[in-house]
Amino acid sequence: MNIALDMMGGDFAPDELVKGIRDYLSEKKPALVSLIGDEQLLLPLLNQYEVPAGAYRIIPTTEVIGMHEHPLKALKGKPDSSIAVGFGLLAAGKIDAFISAGNTGAMLVGSLYTIKPIEGIQRPTIGTIVPMENGATGLLLDVGANADCKAEHLNQFATLGSLYAKYILGIETPRVGLLNIGEEEGKGNVLAQATYPLLKENSQIHFIGNVEGRDVFLDHADVLVCEGFTGNIILKLAESLHGIMDRQKVKNEYFDRFNFEDYGGTPVLGVNKPVIIGHGISRAKAYKNMLLLAQKMIETQLLEKMASAFQA
Amino acid sequence: MNIALDMMGGDFAPDELVKGIRDYLSEKKPALVSLIGDEQLLLPLLNQYEVPAGAYRIIPTTEVIGMHEHPLKALKGKPDSSIAVGFGLLAAGKIDAFISAGNTGAMLVGSLYTIKPIEGIQRPTIGTIVPMENGATGLLLDVGANADCKAEHLNQFATLGSLYAKYILGIETPRVGLLNIGEEEGKGNVLAQATYPLLKENSQIHFIGNVEGRDVFLDHADVLVCEGFTGNIILKLAESLHGIMDRQKVKNEYFDRFNFEDYGGTPVLGVNKPVIIGHGISRAKAYKNMLLLAQKMIETQLLEKMASAFQA
Repeated sequence: MNIALDMMGGDFAPDELVKGIRDYLSEKKPALVSLIGDEQLLLPLLNQYEVPAGAYRIIPTTEVIGMHEHPLKALKGKPDSSIAVGFGLLAAGKIDAFISAGNTGAMLVGSLYTIKPIEGIQRPTIGTIVPMENGATGLLLDVGANADCKAEHLNQFATLGSLYAKYILGIETPRVGLLNIGEEEGKGNVLAQATYPLLKENSQIHFIGNVEGRDVFLDHADVLVCEGFTGNIILKLAESLHGIMDRQKVKNEYFDRFNFEDYGGTPVLGVNKPVIIGHGISRAKAYKNMLLLAQKMIETQLLEKMASAFQA
Repeated sequence: MNIALDMMGGDFAPDELVKGIRDYLSEKKPALVSLIGDEQLLLPLLNQYEVPAGAYRIIPTTEVIGMHEHPLKALKGKPDSSIAVGFGLLAAGKIDAFISAGNTGAMLVGSLYTIKPIEGIQRPTIGTIVPMENGATGLLLDVGANADCKAEHLNQFATLGSLYAKYILGIETPRVGLLNIGEEEGKGNVLAQATYPLLKENSQIHFIGNVEGRDVFLDHADVLVCEGFTGNIILKLAESLHGIMDRQKVKNEYFDRFNFEDYGGTPVLGVNKPVIIGHGISRAKAYKNMLLLAQKMIETQLLEKMASAFQA
């Protein structure tokens, strides 16, 4: 098993990446880690943080895609960038998973056009972990890859999210809720009204009905489905709470879980290979968690399960 | 000035209403308060809470619209309900404002069909107060009256919200932000992309561009504009934070402001007369605040200002 990291992406690259890799390699049975990036920059850091030689290999690249570059243009114009090289290796089967906290748009474009959607999936999606007040962990999706959606897209997100919740979050029968502005069937905007009956008829999920904004953190559902506009607003609003708590000097274990620095990034669900997009603010802990997540996605054969769920 | 209250609506009616009225009447220069409801129920309470006779009058009604009744059917089928009578009196000019914490749908239907939109306004809207971390107070709209919107609707919400922020919140030049999932112009879903240029060209507002989910509570904008689906999810999510804080025993002044029990309800913006919809969980403080808000709406001639903003 070979998991590759874009060593050039993220606000704290490459220092925090090297530390995260070191911590990951001290776990039980780690995968081989491929470090894609500027070799001259990486070697002294690997030495400094005492990363055991033999546990990794470096794939040298000469270009970097900046955080604000146009995704498609950058991927085409910088073939030797860490992101372009990563997707090339993943598509060729030379690595088993690719992780980057760099340009999110480039990561999405690479996933869609180099790795490609699983057959039958119209719109791959990205989700976020939702820390529930009772200690449980849920999944909200889409959180921004698809700003405009059709009902069938949300229905597919529900299936993808359920499989993720089952195999990665370990929830045997995930409850799927439709994020909506009323409890009863028939409530909501046109999209939610059209989505409800599809979810009800979807035999691959356990649909429990509508879930309102007030229930998001209360563990009413394990998988919360919405289009990427609302999902992205919720995600960023939830992220901002952690900063507010910090500034307000509120110390609370539950709200500590809103520290998205700790999470292992978000996988692109619905493409043919494991791709994980990290938050720009990721630090060592997040990178270690992303490596663990990639390993789990491979070990549980999550993508094979997704592919067979969408087989005609 | 004569402000009427539906004494039968809300989870704690009529007790908390009577207490709220008593507290309001002890303020400087209160309006005459009309109490619409079951006289036999109200008289002993008015006596018990020592509400000064002469400061109010009772308008007896015999019917009540339940919280879960179908709005249109209930308004037609119960002409002597407190809500139907309230709208009748308001339309006839016998009262100057109408407040109810009862069936929200019936309040919206009554506003739209009995009071009617101000000429030129396509979709009246409801907003919510946003407590900013720095102590400021903003306005988010729409929060659920319009689940599906067109760009022009959002543009009108922006104008209505600006006038509300100016005359009621006392912000001289309110900054209007478009709630969106990216900072730059051109970002967002189809609706947000179509709305941006309209806001930019709207000479009646001070448009500052897109505002992301992470900025909602950070006072980047005074008036946050979105469709009612996303707005309602945010409102209810924010409301739920107060309950979570309570259960987590977090004591914090800023998050105390998320106690929506304290607010004076939400006015229906864009109709011809002052209508305020209270939260079902309203208590005395909220009713007092709704009365003060209604009085301020009348005194500042807010609705006249809205009407002239939309004059052809």
